[in-house]
Amino acid sequence: MDENVARIGRGALEDFCASVFCRMGLAEADARIAAEVLVAADAAGIPSHGLARLGRYVEGLSNGLILPRAVPKTVTESATSLVIDSGGAMGAPASKRAMEAVIAKARASGAAFACVRDSNHFGIAGYYARMALPESMLGIAMTNTAALGVPTFGSAVMFGTNPIAFAAPAGREKAFVLDMSTTVVSRGKIEVRAREGKAIPAGWAVGREGRDTGEPSPLLDDMQERAGGGLLPLGGRGKEFGGHKGYGLALMVDILCSVLCGAPFGAALRDTAGSSARVSHFFGAINIATFRDPDDFRRDLDEMLRRLRESPVAEGEERVLYAGLPESEFELECARSGVPVIAGTLTAMLRIGESLDVAAAW
Amino acid sequence: MDENVARIGRGALEDFCASVFCRMGLAEADARIAAEVLVAADAAGIPSHGLARLGRYVEGLSNGLILPRAVPKTVTESATSLVIDSGGAMGAPASKRAMEAVIAKARASGAAFACVRDSNHFGIAGYYARMALPESMLGIAMTNTAALGVPTFGSAVMFGTNPIAFAAPAGREKAFVLDMSTTVVSRGKIEVRAREGKAIPAGWAVGREGRDTGEPSPLLDDMQERAGGGLLPLGGRGKEFGGHKGYGLALMVDILCSVLCGAPFGAALRDTAGSSARVSHFFGAINIATFRDPDDFRRDLDEMLRRLRESPVAEGEERVLYAGLPESEFELECARSGVPVIAGTLTAMLRIGESLDVAAAW
Repeated sequence: MDENVARIGRGALEDFCASVFCRMGLAEADARIAAEVLVAADAAGIPSHGLARLGRYVEGLSNGLILPRAVPKTVTESATSLVIDSGGAMGAPASKRAMEAVIAKARASGAAFACVRDSNHFGIAGYYARMALPESMLGIAMTNTAALGVPTFGSAVMFGTNPIAFAAPAGREKAFVLDMSTTVVSRGKIEVRAREGKAIPAGWAVGREGRDTGEPSPLLDDMQERAGGGLLPLGGRGKEFGGHKGYGLALMVDILCSVLCGAPFGAALRDTAGSSARVSHFFGAINIATFRDPDDFRRDLDEMLRRLRESPVAEGEERVLYAGLPESEFELECARSGVPVIAGTLTAMLRIGESLDVAAAW
Repeated sequence: MDENVARIGRGALEDFCASVFCRMGLAEADARIAAEVLVAADAAGIPSHGLARLGRYVEGLSNGLILPRAVPKTVTESATSLVIDSGGAMGAPASKRAMEAVIAKARASGAAFACVRDSNHFGIAGYYARMALPESMLGIAMTNTAALGVPTFGSAVMFGTNPIAFAAPAGREKAFVLDMSTTVVSRGKIEVRAREGKAIPAGWAVGREGRDTGEPSPLLDDMQERAGGGLLPLGGRGKEFGGHKGYGLALMVDILCSVLCGAPFGAALRDTAGSSARVSHFFGAINIATFRDPDDFRRDLDEMLRRLRESPVAEGEERVLYAGLPESEFELECARSGVPVIAGTLTAMLRIGESLDVAAAW
């Protein structure tokens, strides 16, 4: 174990974050959900979406970008559909409740979908898709984000990193849980290269003129200032490696999250010092039992996933994985040994705790 | 216009193909649908899935791989779900009827999905997704295919090119219609390079050991023989450019098409001289009216698509497009000037017509 990483119990981390969110004005139940979703990211090995963001949430709750007591309202509802206007509330509590509603509707109707608009960062999309698994349903979650991505043949940011999550329940195998941004990489990976003083590979992003760029720092400034340049869609620049496919997926996500419920989209979504992107989300559940016996589904999915794990490995690689497997293994390790928190994140957390009179119980 | 390309009226091409399919034993209505879907590919600028395949369909109908008079049966049905066992019938007629059923269910219930199993090649996925557009619905269509794709960190073919189609209706703009394989490229692009004696770029495929390969001909043989090597998922080899995302999308498609209805999947799907892959499809429709006024949806989608078209163009490129736009423009040109058919395809068609006593009416 790296000496710059502390291992802390998941419950203690959740309690700490819940107390912080309570101090920032959230109702107890909302604070608890926000804390659970946040720590779930670290426990899945996705620290970019976890405790490292606590400061940003506290900042948003301080400056009025996130409204701690906003009460999400139902705009439209049917047996298979739901539109929630979140009114600027924290993303996670409204999102978890929307997914719960979608699951309840799918139990009765077979399938259901929800949009949550005027929301804020909701953590990892996979958290909500996974909620369908114990119900023997297929789970879907998506969100748009502040615009960072550049269209195929374009040079200006016109859409977000727009992740897609899809979860399917297995039996003995770990569940299949895809949780992927539709750009090649997220802004976080560019920031890491900038800090390390390293170049970025051609195929991650383009500069002001829409051509390959290797320099992370000017790119980050240009993306922030909307001076041209940004992240490439999955598949890279142009069409040779399928960049138009990632571009299409990113638009699909934006259509489902925003056009379907009348929310802002594309380049209108922008994080600045003074304003939040106020993003929108899309959730879905399909009840497997309306297609076949869920036990048979789990058995067949086990077989598919096992065959993949046992398929021939490329020279120089260790294992063939599938989406959801490494995250589930990481989570088990966290249950045994605690959730890893890097020193920088821990210091920032403790400073927040001190300023809000929240003690760490670990 | 290239002198090796003939421009022929769409209706005349459909009539010719429908007559061919009738001669091969299909019922009149089935033959008409199969012909329409086939020619729709050429009219959308996707000739790889159109008339160039007529010979393969005739061959399949001759040797019993495709059963011209198989009657698809309903396995399960609810207000939002449908499973059809196609019994080895032609892919297009069963698929069009499944999508019609899904649309009818979504009109009543808000959303609906169907699996069609034990089917055959269904043409372009976008054809079925587009059927939702005049109904003011979002349309979804997917299919698995014979296994040609290699998992991230793997070296053996374990899934197909597994396309995803998603259609959303616009107003003044052309509809958004994404229709993309989830591998970087299809086998067809490797075959073109082999014919031209050209290398393939690193990032399209891997050889027997799961490492980059530039040589198309041995790769095609190895894929066919299952000797190792195959197409890479969207995002390429390894994780650096997101290859694990394309891999995850390909599995999502296979889960929805096959595991959801108990059909064969993955490497079990194999085209050989003696057997057909007997693929499965997935269709879906979401009724926009259950979320918001469809006119408002069309207006907002127009705005999104217009902004993308008018966004800054990368240096050296001509236009920023969106999925569905070039296909719709191509289709308009075909309506004016006829559908382009290259000389080789036309010769093969006329030979088929001669052998079946079907005259070309152009």
